[in-house]
Amino acid sequence: MSLIEKCPLAGLEAFIGRCLEACTMPGPDAAKVAGLMAQADLMGQDGHGVFRLPMYVRRIRAGGMNMTPTFERLSERPATALIDGDNGMGHLVMHHATELAMDKARTTGVAWVGARHSNHAGPASLYAMMPARENMIGLYLAVGSANHMPPWGGTDMLLSTNPIAVAVPSQEYPPIVLDMATTVAAYGKVKTAAQRGETMPEGWMIDREGRPLTDPARASEGFLLPIGGPKGYGLSLIFGILAGVLNGAAFGRDVVDFNAEAETVTNTGHMILALDIAAFADPAAFRAGIDDVWRQMKSSARMPGVGEIRLPGERLHRVMIERKAEGIPIPAQLRNALDRLAADLGVASL
Amino acid sequence: MSLIEKCPLAGLEAFIGRCLEACTMPGPDAAKVAGLMAQADLMGQDGHGVFRLPMYVRRIRAGGMNMTPTFERLSERPATALIDGDNGMGHLVMHHATELAMDKARTTGVAWVGARHSNHAGPASLYAMMPARENMIGLYLAVGSANHMPPWGGTDMLLSTNPIAVAVPSQEYPPIVLDMATTVAAYGKVKTAAQRGETMPEGWMIDREGRPLTDPARASEGFLLPIGGPKGYGLSLIFGILAGVLNGAAFGRDVVDFNAEAETVTNTGHMILALDIAAFADPAAFRAGIDDVWRQMKSSARMPGVGEIRLPGERLHRVMIERKAEGIPIPAQLRNALDRLAADLGVASL
Repeated sequence: MSLIEKCPLAGLEAFIGRCLEACTMPGPDAAKVAGLMAQADLMGQDGHGVFRLPMYVRRIRAGGMNMTPTFERLSERPATALIDGDNGMGHLVMHHATELAMDKARTTGVAWVGARHSNHAGPASLYAMMPARENMIGLYLAVGSANHMPPWGGTDMLLSTNPIAVAVPSQEYPPIVLDMATTVAAYGKVKTAAQRGETMPEGWMIDREGRPLTDPARASEGFLLPIGGPKGYGLSLIFGILAGVLNGAAFGRDVVDFNAEAETVTNTGHMILALDIAAFADPAAFRAGIDDVWRQMKSSARMPGVGEIRLPGERLHRVMIERKAEGIPIPAQLRNALDRLAADLGVASL
Repeated sequence: MSLIEKCPLAGLEAFIGRCLEACTMPGPDAAKVAGLMAQADLMGQDGHGVFRLPMYVRRIRAGGMNMTPTFERLSERPATALIDGDNGMGHLVMHHATELAMDKARTTGVAWVGARHSNHAGPASLYAMMPARENMIGLYLAVGSANHMPPWGGTDMLLSTNPIAVAVPSQEYPPIVLDMATTVAAYGKVKTAAQRGETMPEGWMIDREGRPLTDPARASEGFLLPIGGPKGYGLSLIFGILAGVLNGAAFGRDVVDFNAEAETVTNTGHMILALDIAAFADPAAFRAGIDDVWRQMKSSARMPGVGEIRLPGERLHRVMIERKAEGIPIPAQLRNALDRLAADLGVASL
């Protein structure tokens, strides 16, 4: 028996689905969210999949999310829409928004759909990858679900890790999928280091005096560092404006810590852009061009000690193939939390 | 007399215009390019304004750019277009593309216009700021005009500093304008350090063994470093795909060094996205919201030794006001180069 239990995708999906249904989420919605959450685990985004389920359930039970949301279009143009997520789960809001963006882009060439009154939606790549499966390019931005960063030079935590994801389809190679926070490290990595009693490398965090902070147990005394200093601060600010302010969603002082406060409505903002490749190029020729990008990068001469040049999305693709075949690893601590959750909700365990 | 001569904006514009006309560029086009180039200097983007004129002229005289281009729309949808720049000056191509994107966005809400067979177009912010003057948000991406960076872990220079610029209008405060390369330092800063005989800080460049390279005279032995390591590599790759591959423009091994080779057609690719704020929000309310973003960031408590929190575009705005009033500084070395150019072209000097 392996030390870490592995769970088949279908089993994980079914488990998440029955937990959500037990929380009064309608069956079809529960199935949709379960599919997206399990896909996050399948892709290796372990901090954004079933790991979050107990926290989601806590928020649902506290009345902090609406189980029967209606997605109203607050405004609409041929290539844009602003969706009110009605405080539904972010996965449902963004799945809806992404399908709408793809529909529009098929006609207009490109479409941008924003959402307000949404919630945490899992990994950014989930939504960027939806268009990439249909000869489109997907671009997703979000306001992160808690502020962990001040403006450059400041000490008030007004900004989040505001991520960007872009997915581009290819032919023989995996799709290129960039999914990154605008901070050097995501906050989840700090939490993981704290759990394991490890020291963080310099460059992840600084304290209020600007000194390197390497003890993750002291994380609350410091801030995440943006990539490239003021440049990453600028990216976080701009992505926050495009995903938050533009949509009338929370930004800056209004951002609610999704994990700390289970009852307060978060008014999370995200946006998805879908671009129809056929509006610019023959999709097959474009995909072959992306294969050529793969070949050029992979065949570059390497620095001493570097075994392989990687492209964004390569690890994700490898993990996905491995986990499809072997199942999704569920560490003992997570397994225990999920067992407690199942007992609590009165549903069959994983 | 000041050590550095200052030239009024109108004089600089007129000088650039007559140089371009002497190179057979039609008058209205020459005026348009001159206006954009002088605006780059006005904004403090000294490496992207009149400083480039001798190099542009060298390329024009070598037959490397077309003085009478026709901008064909290779494909078009309600919210997209692909423009063939016909090897015209990048400023003309992107001014045309940006006006088209803004026209489309007024109806569709958002528009994305790409260009191929273009050339160096000056600073990215020039085009992102055009929509921001008309209650729109502008987003510009480009494939840089020379490769200075390998893929992460590699040593083949396949990537450029591929920049992003985003401009967002405000009410009482200056517009927020992010304009950044995906590398820690732009190559121009390396050249400046070399000219001044200065040492570069660690983190700008590494050599082929991955060791810090701080002597700018040895720049050709090394590479620029991306912001955030693999993250900046990912951003450069993705921006290069969106601005280059998607448009059928040069990327990777096909990128021509604009400065080194005056005759070879560069097939430069860029893209501009214009988003009509009114498709999402009342523009006045949105602009007031951006003012609030300014106030929140500016009023953050500060780290020891930090005098002021800055927002992207703040320095640009200050410099612009200063230079409008006092003129644009022209260092002696540049003044000499421009005098030689004027003599060469048989036009009145600056």
